[in-house]
Amino acid sequence: MSQVLLSLYRKYAADRLRGFERMENPGYCSGSFDGLHHPSDDDDDDMVDIAGATLDFSSTDDVPPLSSGGYEEYSSSSRAAGMNGNGPAKLVDPLEDPVPGLGTYEDFNTIDWVREKSKDRDRHREITKKSRQSTVALLHSVSDAFSGWLLMLLVGLMSGALAGGIDIAAHWLTDMKDGVCLIGFWFNHEHCCWTSNETTFQERDRCPQWQSWGELITGTSEGAFAYIMNYLMYIFWALLFSFLAVTLVRAFAPYACGSGIPEIKTILSGFIIRGYLGKWTLIIKTITLVLAVSSGLSLGKEGPLVHVACCCANILCHLFTKYRKNEAKRREVLSAAAAVGVSVAFGAPIGGVLFSLEEVSYYFPLKTLWRSFFAALVAAFTLRSINPFGNSRLVLFYVEFHAPWHLVELAPFVLLGIFGGLWGALFIKANIAWCRIRKSTRLGHYPVTEVLVVAALTALLAYPNSYTRMSGAELISELFNDCSLLDSSQLCGYKQPTNTSETGVGNSLADRPAGEGLYTALWQLALALIFKMMITVITFGMKVPSGLFIPSMAVGAIAGRLLGVGMEQLAYYNHDWLIFKGWCSPGADCITPGLYAMVGAAACLGGVTRMTVSLVVIMFELTGGLEYIVPLMAATMTSKWVADAFGREGIYEAHIRLNGYPFLEPKEEFEHSSLAVDVMRPRRSDPALAVLTQEGMTVGEVETLVESTHYSGFPVVVSQESQRLVGFVLRRDLLISIDNARKRQEGIVSASQVVFTEHAPAQAPEAPPPLRLRGIMDLSPFTVTDHTPMDITVDIFRKLGLRQCLVTHNGRLLGIITKKDILKHMAQIANRDPDSILFN
Amino acid sequence: MSQVLLSLYRKYAADRLRGFERMENPGYCSGSFDGLHHPSDDDDDDMVDIAGATLDFSSTDDVPPLSSGGYEEYSSSSRAAGMNGNGPAKLVDPLEDPVPGLGTYEDFNTIDWVREKSKDRDRHREITKKSRQSTVALLHSVSDAFSGWLLMLLVGLMSGALAGGIDIAAHWLTDMKDGVCLIGFWFNHEHCCWTSNETTFQERDRCPQWQSWGELITGTSEGAFAYIMNYLMYIFWALLFSFLAVTLVRAFAPYACGSGIPEIKTILSGFIIRGYLGKWTLIIKTITLVLAVSSGLSLGKEGPLVHVACCCANILCHLFTKYRKNEAKRREVLSAAAAVGVSVAFGAPIGGVLFSLEEVSYYFPLKTLWRSFFAALVAAFTLRSINPFGNSRLVLFYVEFHAPWHLVELAPFVLLGIFGGLWGALFIKANIAWCRIRKSTRLGHYPVTEVLVVAALTALLAYPNSYTRMSGAELISELFNDCSLLDSSQLCGYKQPTNTSETGVGNSLADRPAGEGLYTALWQLALALIFKMMITVITFGMKVPSGLFIPSMAVGAIAGRLLGVGMEQLAYYNHDWLIFKGWCSPGADCITPGLYAMVGAAACLGGVTRMTVSLVVIMFELTGGLEYIVPLMAATMTSKWVADAFGREGIYEAHIRLNGYPFLEPKEEFEHSSLAVDVMRPRRSDPALAVLTQEGMTVGEVETLVESTHYSGFPVVVSQESQRLVGFVLRRDLLISIDNARKRQEGIVSASQVVFTEHAPAQAPEAPPPLRLRGIMDLSPFTVTDHTPMDITVDIFRKLGLRQCLVTHNGRLLGIITKKDILKHMAQIANRDPDSILFN
Repeated sequence: MSQVLLSLYRKYAADRLRGFERMENPGYCSGSFDGLHHPSDDDDDDMVDIAGATLDFSSTDDVPPLSSGGYEEYSSSSRAAGMNGNGPAKLVDPLEDPVPGLGTYEDFNTIDWVREKSKDRDRHREITKKSRQSTVALLHSVSDAFSGWLLMLLVGLMSGALAGGIDIAAHWLTDMKDGVCLIGFWFNHEHCCWTSNETTFQERDRCPQWQSWGELITGTSEGAFAYIMNYLMYIFWALLFSFLAVTLVRAFAPYACGSGIPEIKTILSGFIIRGYLGKWTLIIKTITLVLAVSSGLSLGKEGPLVHVACCCANILCHLFTKYRKNEAKRREVLSAAAAVGVSVAFGAPIGGVLFSLEEVSYYFPLKTLWRSFFAALVAAFTLRSINPFGNSRLVLFYVEFHAPWHLVELAPFVLLGIFGGLWGALFIKANIAWCRIRKSTRLGHYPVTEVLVVAALTALLAYPNSYTRMSGAELISELFNDCSLLDSSQLCGYKQPTNTSETGVGNSLADRPAGEGLYTALWQLALALIFKMMITVITFGMKVPSGLFIPSMAVGAIAGRLLGVGMEQLAYYNHDWLIFKGWCSPGADCITPGLYAMVGAAACLGGVTRMTVSLVVIMFELTGGLEYIVPLMAATMTSKWVADAFGREGIYEAHIRLNGYPFLEPKEEFEHSSLAVDVMRPRRSDPALAVLTQEGMTVGEVETLVESTHYSGFPVVVSQESQRLVGFVLRRDLLISIDNARKRQEGIVSASQVVFTEHAPAQAPEAPPPLRLRGIMDLSPFTVTDHTPMDITVDIFRKLGLRQCLVTHNGRLLGIITKKDILKHMAQIANRDPDSILFN
Repeated sequence: MSQVLLSLYRKYAADRLRGFERMENPGYCSGSFDGLHHPSDDDDDDMVDIAGATLDFSSTDDVPPLSSGGYEEYSSSSRAAGMNGNGPAKLVDPLEDPVPGLGTYEDFNTIDWVREKSKDRDRHREITKKSRQSTVALLHSVSDAFSGWLLMLLVGLMSGALAGGIDIAAHWLTDMKDGVCLIGFWFNHEHCCWTSNETTFQERDRCPQWQSWGELITGTSEGAFAYIMNYLMYIFWALLFSFLAVTLVRAFAPYACGSGIPEIKTILSGFIIRGYLGKWTLIIKTITLVLAVSSGLSLGKEGPLVHVACCCANILCHLFTKYRKNEAKRREVLSAAAAVGVSVAFGAPIGGVLFSLEEVSYYFPLKTLWRSFFAALVAAFTLRSINPFGNSRLVLFYVEFHAPWHLVELAPFVLLGIFGGLWGALFIKANIAWCRIRKSTRLGHYPVTEVLVVAALTALLAYPNSYTRMSGAELISELFNDCSLLDSSQLCGYKQPTNTSETGVGNSLADRPAGEGLYTALWQLALALIFKMMITVITFGMKVPSGLFIPSMAVGAIAGRLLGVGMEQLAYYNHDWLIFKGWCSPGADCITPGLYAMVGAAACLGGVTRMTVSLVVIMFELTGGLEYIVPLMAATMTSKWVADAFGREGIYEAHIRLNGYPFLEPKEEFEHSSLAVDVMRPRRSDPALAVLTQEGMTVGEVETLVESTHYSGFPVVVSQESQRLVGFVLRRDLLISIDNARKRQEGIVSASQVVFTEHAPAQAPEAPPPLRLRGIMDLSPFTVTDHTPMDITVDIFRKLGLRQCLVTHNGRLLGIITKKDILKHMAQIANRDPDSILFN
């Protein structure tokens, strides 16, 4: 293990040494990217791979070298930004690149969806046109058309395989905390006892080949000493695993921490975070996810699996020009990858697709729906053929209930929904408050210590209680299960019916009175509930990979099971009550506590994430019966309504806001009645808008204007007097073009005129040749009038994926609105700090 | 029966007499709405209920009476069109209506989504603001928020109940063709024999209470004479039912014919077809659907059920102001209703929601997703509690397969996909060609005769073959079923294994050699396949309610079953072939012909409709096992690809195009590289754009301009010279306002100046007072530059749901692009007649 790590580390260190200052930024995972705000020396492979057509991403540079010699080297950079004005007069081949770097984005910037999609359409048109000319081009066109499907297949296979590996490794390491297999340390408990001759499951679990640490050290499996040894070893392994996890994250891939879903949502909405979905993040997240899950911390692997699947997709995108070069197309693949992540996490492909549609994606065309579904299925079947759970089940928690539910039971289900909603709202508030403390106080400076302390605390408190000692997934699985007569679990510690002849012969699932064992179990569960609720708040947001699905579901499942058993006993002892009369005769199986656990789990997960359809569908796929959809739906709806009453944001949106990402929530309506003129810059008191004129400015003047401001783009107008809009030029494109022209084009000096018109104006004969830049100008900038209500403007931004929009009044240019302006305005309306929006 | 019809007719005739000329338009259902193009005397209740706040829609007028007296009477008309410019200076209360008719639409016109949504947001803002002032207003606000859910509940309940009624009635009438129940003619065959003492199903089917017509008339159930009597009675009932169906449709609700899905797609994309979803359409479609299905014609009830559900939703919308007044909000409800329709048709709520999302809806926000799901579930459970099939199953075709499939079988599945794709493409071409013939020749003048001839032909050919005699749903159900040893159906006529000891003892499902009965069945199936393929082409598009799902699935299921039995026999006799070796040992159940039938059905339905995800999910919900998703997916994908190679349009899009609806396909990318300037009007040779100036024009001049053109809107510019855009005024709003002002406002004459500016300009003292119309002007018209590529423009139209967009060049107004212009341009590119687009 350490050998592997060492070699990994060496490879990493040899590649680059600069990145290490990053690791000193302690506030990192809990929120701000302060230290990352201008990472021109980006230390991970690119989310936008600008200049690397090869697969060796780690050696690519962030900023394309402007002074580079050959064009051919930069085949992967995007084409000129002027694609929007592809009139018949211009002959830019969309498959080739005029100037490297033109039309690309900087880190922590928002992409322009319209431009990207237009670029892709140009590319497609070009390929179609060429395909009519030769057979090779036709084949190219066909392979281009099918590359999307191939990519989906690869994403599904890779993610499924990785998920299988993670499951197996986590299983093994989790068992390692308890003991070791004598016939080979690489066997987990189950595999170790596989060949054992014992017949019952109980016996088999205690097969002689598997020795707990206490047994191994003290020689006996009984007694206080062995228990203490086991306890200590449990804590030791927990600390070791969590230490390894947090160190690996800090050293190699700071982006690997957390669940990743808030960042993926932001990326899918059109933001660039270079390296977030890179090779290193993938490797480290996969390893540390196993470690973190095994360490017994109150976290799940479901959210991080979405991140892992997205990393796979992003890396595989590099294999196909179509996706490597286009930010919009790549995001379609990432949307599908999010579906794949949930599909492998729960074994629920349809639920995964709906999760991606409902929760994660921003732009989700129907084509993507179909492809996501394909990829999710491939991944689910890959995972099943790996068979990590050894039971050939596709789903994570397989449940089969035997009794139908009754309408009266909707009341407790709704109660669970209320509990879920309250817990969700409370959790979000507490977690965000804790993250703020971590960000603003010295606590944030000691991420490793924090993880170790929390891990120690978790292990210390979790070990004595068998329900917290087992992993979250095991716990949920046990709580969901229905008790049969033969079940020996403590939760099924009912009194055996004495007079079988009376109370329903043959109905082995009839309600029975609770026995000693069950009462103990209930107490332990109640303690586990409190413990889980507390510890999850401080665990989520630490610098290890951590998902929220399993802990939230565990809380809900415990609460649900408690309520379910309570209802069951109530019904058993009070058959004659009005509410039970008529449907719950003695000896019948009226109440299924496992169903209550399931409903509770859905309610709590719904309260925390505010998922609706996808949640119900995932749960439906677990049970496979439409029967139980109604309880699930009732609880989920109640939970969402209750939680929404305390605040509309789910945990992911709350973390997005905490981190100051420029994310324009697609679900919320903009309610305020402001107009575009209220939001646009320049404000009344500001200096006038910085504009370029379509002719008459010199290169020097343009450079001075650009350098004296920090705007990322400039409108081009007919003349300063008329302010009639001609087009829009991006700062980055302008700088790259001027730089390029100065180096390459004969006679371009500071005094040269910059010309944006189609035909160069007449000049004095001795004047230097003009620099013609119409090619980089966007000839179709989006405009709204000053009277446009902001709700419409926000709608336009959301639906079209704009980055900026110009504001006109009676045909004159008045100002500009960027996505950041809108977000700041929204923050202001909500009485929040408008400067909490950090990025463009 | 006839009593009921007569009273219905009387009520109808009393209401209105004018509408009858409509019925003389024979070309109606097959395509054009020529006769309906200007239906100012609209004879059905309104899709847009302009002036009827009451529920008695039938008495509303289409055009709001301009000369009406009181404002209060017109509370349901929408508010002023100027809501886009709701600046602080304007104080229009969105809950009240300044001038009746302002901001509404004419029949066969496209709505402006942006305006409608903006209107709803204004309304919501107003309610929220008021809710802070009083408790009553707060309650109103809460009830407003929950009205959407209540509406969904009602839609679900009503559609579920109607679907149940349709099922029961269709079942009864279908059995009526065979015979009659002696203990009560209102019992169907199954109910009649319910209490029979016979034990086996076979025996029970021949219970003495149920007598076939032949038996009743001739006194014996055997012999040629009885057969001929049965035959004749079968034809008689088929003719009677189809005659009743077509007559009712023609007499009362011409919109009730066809499947309705093409029109619903168009309506959801933002088109107005008044009466299409009205009360009369609902009543007549429900009745005639039962008749048409019972008549034995090759049609299904699934598509029409979507129409029925949408009618329910539209009618229930009238109960809630929020939805009655707003076209965009109403379309959200209709989207959910489409999901409800499929949910009750197949008992597949999730599939229904995805169907609505993938196939029908245009604008499908996440909120609608969740509500659709709720409504679909409510409907499915309502239907189940009615229990029309008597088996308490939710799904239409319940299947349970026992054997897994093998990878080798993917080859025949893909083959079925190819067959489905070819059949889909062929069917669309043939059906459209037939519809064109119907439209252009004299055939279209005799819809009743056509239906009768087809019904007679169908009955004549269908009766002798038991597979065509049974209804489509029964046929599919039988084909999907797996044969067990005890199965007595002809399709399961295998030779019983003689030496049970050898060939897999206990495996009652093992592959067996085909026997006499099976060979007969195969021949009959092959004939049925040819018959179904032919007859469906001429049936779909007739003037009776007709769905395509069941006939398409039947064709595929027959083909699939044939291939499946073929494969089974191949495998049975050739165990040692390389492809079967290793997985298909003698006596094993290798091939499941029922699964082949299912895959074939999915492939054919996919080829015809081009559904993908929703189709697979519907099929998944029928079987309930993720196991069989992969074959279904392989076949559906192949089918779609093959069919797309012959033409990208599904049957619904083809019918939309045939009818000339203004539908902008959201799935297809615009591939051509034209610019906005190429599409806009006026063209180079045309006269200049008709514009209004913001001041300086008199009322008379404006009226002359409006009357001399037929445009539905006019841009307002600063002055004719500068052509700088100020806003946009709709023709309808302009006419209504001027008319209103002339009647009500003191001193408005033809010489009065029309002023669109905020402050009226100084005038000569003796001049008449100016008419200020800024309120009806849209201050935020959408503009694009002349250089904007059309692909971006089309995207904007699609995503924002625009009706028109203005084109500028360097800040000057140049022209206008409407949805119709875009569709004409697209038709031109595709070498079609641009005049095939009929509506605005």
